Amino acid sequence: MTSFTPQDPEFEARVRASFARQEVMRTIGATLASVQPGAVEIVLPFRADLSQQHGFLHAGIVATILDSACGYAAFSLMPANMAVLAVEFKINLLSPAKGRQIVAKAQVKRAGRTLTVCTADAYAHGEGEPKVVATMLSTIMAVPERDGLREQQP
Amino acid sequence: MTSFTPQDPEFEARVRASFARQEVMRTIGATLASVQPGAVEIVLPFRADLSQQHGFLHAGIVATILDSACGYAAFSLMPANMAVLAVEFKINLLSPAKGRQIVAKAQVKRAGRTLTVCTADAYAHGEGEPKVVATMLSTIMAVPERDGLREQQP
Amino acid sequence: MTSFTPQDPEFEARVRASFARQEVMRTIGATLASVQPGAVEIVLPFRADLSQQHGFLHAGIVATILDSACGYAAFSLMPANMAVLAVEFKINLLSPAKGRQIVAKAQVKRAGRTLTVCTADAYAHGEGEPKVVATMLSTIMAVPERDGLREQQP
Amino acid sequence: MTSFTPQDPEFEARVRASFARQEVMRTIGATLASVQPGAVEIVLPFRADLSQQHGFLHAGIVATILDSACGYAAFSLMPANMAVLAVEFKINLLSPAKGRQIVAKAQVKRAGRTLTVCTADAYAHGEGEPKVVATMLSTIMAVPERDGLREQQP
Repeated sequence: MTSFTPQDPEFEARVRASFARQEVMRTIGATLASVQPGAVEIVLPFRADLSQQHGFLHAGIVATILDSACGYAAFSLMPANMAVLAVEFKINLLSPAKGRQIVAKAQVKRAGRTLTVCTADAYAHGEGEPKVVATMLSTIMAVPERDGLREQQP
Repeated sequence: MTSFTPQDPEFEARVRASFARQEVMRTIGATLASVQPGAVEIVLPFRADLSQQHGFLHAGIVATILDSACGYAAFSLMPANMAVLAVEFKINLLSPAKGRQIVAKAQVKRAGRTLTVCTADAYAHGEGEPKVVATMLSTIMAVPERDGLREQQP
Repeated sequence: MTSFTPQDPEFEARVRASFARQEVMRTIGATLASVQPGAVEIVLPFRADLSQQHGFLHAGIVATILDSACGYAAFSLMPANMAVLAVEFKINLLSPAKGRQIVAKAQVKRAGRTLTVCTADAYAHGEGEPKVVATMLSTIMAVPERDGLREQQP
Repeated sequence: MTSFTPQDPEFEARVRASFARQEVMRTIGATLASVQPGAVEIVLPFRADLSQQHGFLHAGIVATILDSACGYAAFSLMPANMAVLAVEFKINLLSPAKGRQIVAKAQVKRAGRTLTVCTADAYAHGEGEPKVVATMLSTIMAVPERDGLREQQP
């Protein structure tokens, strides 16, 4: 994996503060496990009330933690005055998302001035070895915070 | 839009029964608004506890209702003994997901024996005209129910 | 479909001049059939020397004309001093790409200051009704021409 | 990277024979550099007649070799009586595709009975270190050869 030098030495505090404002993370019970320059991990304990019709974690919930992991991996490399917007992502569901908890691991593939591309994998932890259950490829945009995100248009 | 003839006349009851088993829909407050052959609508009233760091609905939650709408649009055209699995999807976020409620509208683009391709748009309803906030292109797989979905691998 | 007002009244001439510089279009035999504000059509007569192992047009060649159609649909709505870069695209292959010719039709889904999102379908024309063989969802970036595209990084 | 055991000991000969039938590869000048179980490399020397309007290799041509590399990585792990169909792929363009040659490296991420998911990167080789210029995430379907691919529908 490529190693990155953060532009803002306070990147971890900045990522953790922004993650704490994502109310959906609290609602689903996800926590920020690790923040490295260009790499972020989010952990989601399995909950039956987040399941689809066969009792597995819904693909959209797996996408939710993968998308946040990608966004914050990108955010960790940006200057202090920038905010992130998700432009788009693609996810492949590889195996049923079940077990004790799901861990989303994202890393920056390429950091550009405006756009950052990330990849991420979701692993199911249960009995035995962790198993990859989904993979994501996503594009994130840096926008100046002063632009007023509420009216922001990519 | 193409018009489709369902293989199972009971398609709507079958879709509604399966949707009712998606516990995540109850958790986030989404409801099934409309079920036509090859076309499904899901409504999600805005809730601050599903938001990201800027107060908009999290992209993963928008993806959750779009993915279910796509899955059930595909499911509506399948024979009675089949189940659906999400293979993959891509979503583009077009505008901040805010307003009173988000409506996900999915339609089948092509129904094959094994794979179905769907497109879907999410509209924010607030003041004024509804506004498209996200669009999805997704692939869904039909698997025989008897295969035992809990161990299913695509 | 949304109707768009071009920012540059010379949009068609600008699109046609840029298309003429895409040497790959000449190499594969593709031509620009139609340029409307936010909508472009490219025609590719079938050629056996562009086929994959089963004799159909290779998915990458179908992607080539869909990608150019999307890029120029986006380009048609930009101011005169901007250039376009493909950020990413996803394509679903729906049916074998065969017949007399393939027509790629792209339209802008959302035009933003920096990013434009397009959808496109490829139709096979042979005997009977044209048949959709592929669909694309893509993201295009506007960059100032003066930035020197040869060293451009998104 | 995961290591895979091929089901057909003749996988390399089978991949090379199928690649030789992809006429588009001959047309653009691409060759099959390496075939391992679940991993394939294709090399494309730069050619100005495959370029887009700024003189870089067209994104669709980069997608063409990445798509074939993914398809053959999947094909290498299949039993001898199966054929492959591209279901869909997403590509992110990371940097201008220029230099002496582009090398597409694909590997299987997950091999299922029906569907295989692959990732691939394209590297530009010129002066200095090779540079990643594009990345792909794709889904490939195995179909029995006897089903008659000319009428195959996924």
